[in-house]
Formats: sequence, structure tokens, C-alpha cells
Amino acid sequence: MWRSFTHWVGGMGVLVFIMAFLPLSGGRNMYIMKAESPGPVVGKLVPKVRQTAKILYGIYLALTVLMMLFLLCGGMPLFDTLNTAFATAGTGGFAIKADGFAGYSHYLQWVVTLFMLLFSLNFNAYFLILCGKIKAAFNLEIKVFLGIVIAAVTLITLNICLTASTLYDYAVGDAIRYSAFSVASVVSTTGFATANFDLWPAFSKFILVLCMFIGACAGSTGGGFKVSRVVVLYKGATHEMKRALHPKQVKKITMDGRIVEHEVVRNTNAYLVIYLLIFMASLFLVSLSCEDLVTNFTAVLATINNIGPGLGKVGPAGNFAFYSNFSKLVFVFDMLAGRLELFPMLILLRPATWKK
Amino acid sequence: MWRSFTHWVGGMGVLVFIMAFLPLSGGRNMYIMKAESPGPVVGKLVPKVRQTAKILYGIYLALTVLMMLFLLCGGMPLFDTLNTAFATAGTGGFAIKADGFAGYSHYLQWVVTLFMLLFSLNFNAYFLILCGKIKAAFNLEIKVFLGIVIAAVTLITLNICLTASTLYDYAVGDAIRYSAFSVASVVSTTGFATANFDLWPAFSKFILVLCMFIGACAGSTGGGFKVSRVVVLYKGATHEMKRALHPKQVKKITMDGRIVEHEVVRNTNAYLVIYLLIFMASLFLVSLSCEDLVTNFTAVLATINNIGPGLGKVGPAGNFAFYSNFSKLVFVFDMLAGRLELFPMLILLRPATWKK
Repeated sequence: MWRSFTHWVGGMGVLVFIMAFLPLSGGRNMYIMKAESPGPVVGKLVPKVRQTAKILYGIYLALTVLMMLFLLCGGMPLFDTLNTAFATAGTGGFAIKADGFAGYSHYLQWVVTLFMLLFSLNFNAYFLILCGKIKAAFNLEIKVFLGIVIAAVTLITLNICLTASTLYDYAVGDAIRYSAFSVASVVSTTGFATANFDLWPAFSKFILVLCMFIGACAGSTGGGFKVSRVVVLYKGATHEMKRALHPKQVKKITMDGRIVEHEVVRNTNAYLVIYLLIFMASLFLVSLSCEDLVTNFTAVLATINNIGPGLGKVGPAGNFAFYSNFSKLVFVFDMLAGRLELFPMLILLRPATWKK
Repeated sequence: MWRSFTHWVGGMGVLVFIMAFLPLSGGRNMYIMKAESPGPVVGKLVPKVRQTAKILYGIYLALTVLMMLFLLCGGMPLFDTLNTAFATAGTGGFAIKADGFAGYSHYLQWVVTLFMLLFSLNFNAYFLILCGKIKAAFNLEIKVFLGIVIAAVTLITLNICLTASTLYDYAVGDAIRYSAFSVASVVSTTGFATANFDLWPAFSKFILVLCMFIGACAGSTGGGFKVSRVVVLYKGATHEMKRALHPKQVKKITMDGRIVEHEVVRNTNAYLVIYLLIFMASLFLVSLSCEDLVTNFTAVLATINNIGPGLGKVGPAGNFAFYSNFSKLVFVFDMLAGRLELFPMLILLRPATWKK
């Protein structure tokens, strides 16, 4: 219960939590919020930061309660309901059963699938919906995110239905449910499991790995690289190509009608480079204690993106126990670095940080 | 013979070749050279572009002849010598024997190792050495490149010596020779083979994969992502981190004492994003025709970086024959895109390019 509750509190950042309930003064609150919120851009919903934090937490609480009601309707015991709702809301993903969610009813699995996705959307969207601005709520990031989810579920369902073998042989309905649950679980970086997707064909596994990479929307409780970062990188790169073709054209990068500042693009590019550097360095270090390249690659991916399961030995049916203690320390670093959006952990490693 | 000769001609770009020997006028030559030369920055050695091209080709020819002399001294037949020298100079990497270079003497293998590395250095360095500016010749890119090669060879040698098994069990001297040859072969993107490094432990394989990623120096005949791009990305990212800590500091990114323009950093970041996009898209498409994720990953890497062998089924002892025709078309695209530095192939895919 306590473990699940820490998921829930950690979900939207302990600091934003404190800010919402403790009286803080001065102009520093916005910096705390910026440091604590995942993703490249932080927008204040209302002029006062404390007010914004309270609104976000209100939505968070309301969604959690709503999920509990849905779960209780499906006949889930109260203890399971509380744990499941906390673990889903914080995209923490520790289930309380040894078989994850495979033992629950189809209805309960679909409820969890839906709420994993809801908790990976940018929370600003819910605020905008509450204000009646439904069109503004569905911004580019959310459209891209939903597009990725729908495409991934469709392609994986087709793939596992067409290649049924002795390892997996699902009816169409089950295939849809398993693929939707798995996609929602990895893209939201929750990490629950109903099916052992490590047995699925390479095409499905690769799509899941791509979903692991991209992760949730910025401003959600989910982890990963964040959809908005992918969008900013894509726009920056195509903008650069257009500039190569028309060197004298003066055009700004825009997103949802607003200009994306140079600083955001530059910062996101730096984020990508540092992400890749930490990724490569971690792979380098852990490849000393495991011979399987796919296991190593997805183990680093699953830790740095805070997902949970990877593929191979760290797949949904496996765990990280066999890695050496040194490798586990590397994973600890990756998990913290990923959750804190890389920069803070690197600043800790700089010698200058420790000088007086 | 003709195949090897096309390696040699292609090595430094057919256009620079034409420019060196045909009379062209106007100011466009510099653009042709920029388009044809690998890497983010093109420096003219002397004021006139045609003169620069001639000097570069002179160095290229001299190094090729020098290599032939070394090979002939080791008792290699003339036909083998010509083919080997052409394939090494152009970092093309088609050997004329079925077992690659495993059948040649140790001396000949070391000569090929040395020249694979020499042809992956920035050719400007040789010009500077000829001018007596030895200190300027060893610029940051070359230092980083040599550092990577020495570190990779040392680590792989230690790794394969300490983990000797029934698959591989080399004396120390052989281990050094095999690892040096393999590192030089993949980092220069030549692709010759003396040992089946697919049998080596995960740590060594991962180091080789990293070398495949990075590739040769800019302004060489080699392919890959290019060392100078890695350096520019690293400098850009750390610069961005420093800016986050000291927002009011005004500092420029420098390399070898010269300022790296914003445009170069931006362009290199765009290159990375487009590289990753093509990489992911290719992996997505080819994972339909091969079930092994490591094979797929290194097959795409080996084609987009113009290396030759990868790991698994496309390792030094395997080939790409089992892939479907569709996957082979994807690889054809990747090989061309990688050789032409990505942008030209993407511009061909834009609908606007084909409109009148």
C-alpha cells in the first residue's frame, strides 16, 4: 500500500505537491515547477503558480477516484483497487499480483488500458476541456500521441494475428486486448503486463521498442523521451532542410499556432545528444555482465525511460536480478536520470558542482 | 578489377574528381565540393577550389601507391595488390578472396590495418603535414579519432583474451592483430574481415557497434556519422548545459581555436535527427523479413554507414541474401542516403522536388 502510494505522490512530482499545499512565497515557484515537470515547455494555466499546481492536483485526484470507481464496478477488491489506481496514476507500474494483470477480467484490463493512456496525456488538456476549450485541448502533441497509439495497436494486432504460432495464438478480440494493453503500458511507461510480448514477432517487438523510446506526453505523469520533444526535433530538422533549399527564406518553427523559440529547439537537441550519450555509456558498462545485446539494449531503455519490462531476459516474464551489482548501480543512475530529465543528475557529476 | 577501381574513384567523390581534371568556371565549384565532401565543415586548403581538389587527389594517389609498395614488399601478387589498395583507399571493402583477409600473412594484415586508418583521417591533415604544420595537422577530430581507435583496440583485446572460449581462443599477439584489424575495418567503414567478430563477447561487439556508428573523420574517404559531427554534438550539448547553469554567460563554441558557427551546430543536430528517423524507419520496414533484432539493427547500421558486415546473420561470416527483396530496396536506399550524407536522398523524396 505504501509502495503504491509513493507511486501516486511521485507521479506528479513531490515538489509540485509540496508547493500546492505549503505556503511558499517569492518568484522561485515557477522554477521549481519547471524543474519538476516533464517535457520541454511548461505553460502556466493560470497566472499564479500555486493555483496552477492545485488545479493539476485536483485533476489528478479526480482521475484517480474515477478510475477507482470503474475498477470497483468491475468487482475488483478495494485493496487491489487502491493499489492499481495509485500505480496507474503515477505510471509506476508495480502490480500486486505475481502475474501482473493477466488474472483480472477483460473489463478490468480495458479500464487499466484506458487510464494508463489518460494519465499519459498532458494534464493541461483536461484543464482546457473543463474550461470548455475542447478544440484547444487536442493540441499537436496529443494528436501525435493518439496517432502513435492507434497505429501501434493496429499494426501489432495484425502482426500477431497473421503470424500465430505455438508461442502465441490469440483470437482476434484477445489480440486487440493484449496489444492495446501492451502498447498503453509501454508508451505510458507504466509497465504492467498481461501478455509476454517478448514472444511476439520482431515487427511487433520493434514497434513496442519505438513506443518505449517515445513515451508519454509532456506535462503528464509518464516518462520516456516525451512526444513533444519528438515533435520539436522533427520540426527543427525539417526546418533546417527547408533552409538548405531556400537559404534566404525567413520562417519560424511553430506549434499549435505559437512560435517555438530557438532556445527550446536548441535545448531539445542537447537533450537528445545527452540522452544518447547516457544510453551508450550505460550499454557499454552493462554489456560486461550480460551476453545478450537485445536484453542489454532494452534493459537500459526500460530504466532510462522508467518503463519496467524490456525484451529478452528483462522481458515481461523476466527480471533484472541476474545483472551484476555494478550493472544494477548503472540502472539506478539511469532510472533517476530519466525521471529527473537527465540534466540534474549530470550536474551532480560535474566536479565544479562540488567545489566551494 | 573494375569493381575495385570504382571503389577508388568513388572514394573521394566523382564530382571532385571531375572538377580536378575538367575546366569548370564560376563560383559554383565550392558548392559542388561542399555537397560531395563528407562531414559538417569544408575548408579550402588553398584559395582556388580546383587547386584544392588537385592537391587532395594528389595525396590520395600518393597514399594508394605507397600502400601498393608496402603490399608488394610483403609478397602479395600484383592483381591482389591493385584490388586491395583500391578497395582500401576508397573504404569500399570488397575483398577478392572468399575468406576476406584471413588468408594473407600477418604483415599484409597489419599493412591493410594501417592504411584503413590512414584513409579515414581528414585529408587536410596530410596537406598540413606536407606544409610542415605538424601541430596544426593533429586537430581535435584526429585526436579524438585516434583516441577512440586506441581505446577500442585495447578494450577488445583485453576482453577477448580474458574470455577465451571454444568459439575463439587467441594468443595475445593474434588477439591484438584481430582486434586492431576489426576496429580499423569498421571505424573506417571499409568492411574487410580477418576474424568473425560476431563470435566475440557482448562487450567487444558493443564497442564495434559504437565504432560503426561513429565512423571515420570528415574529409576522408570513409563513411559513418563522422567523428567531427560527434564532437560538434557533444560540444553543443555541454554548451547548452553550461548555459542552463549560468544563463547570463556569453560564450561561443570553439574547435581548434576557431568558433563553430550556430549554423553548423544546428545543421549537425538536424543531421542527427534525420539520421535517427531514417534508421528507425528502415528498422521498422526490415523487421518484417527477419526475426532477429540484432541482425536487423546492425544490418541497417552497416548499410546506412556504408560499412559492410554487421552482427548476427549479417556478421562477417554471413550476408544479406536471406532478406526479402523489399528489405533489400530499403538497404539500397540506406546505402545511397548514407554515402550522400542523407539530405540529397530526402530531397528526392519530397513531392515539391518533382513539381514543375
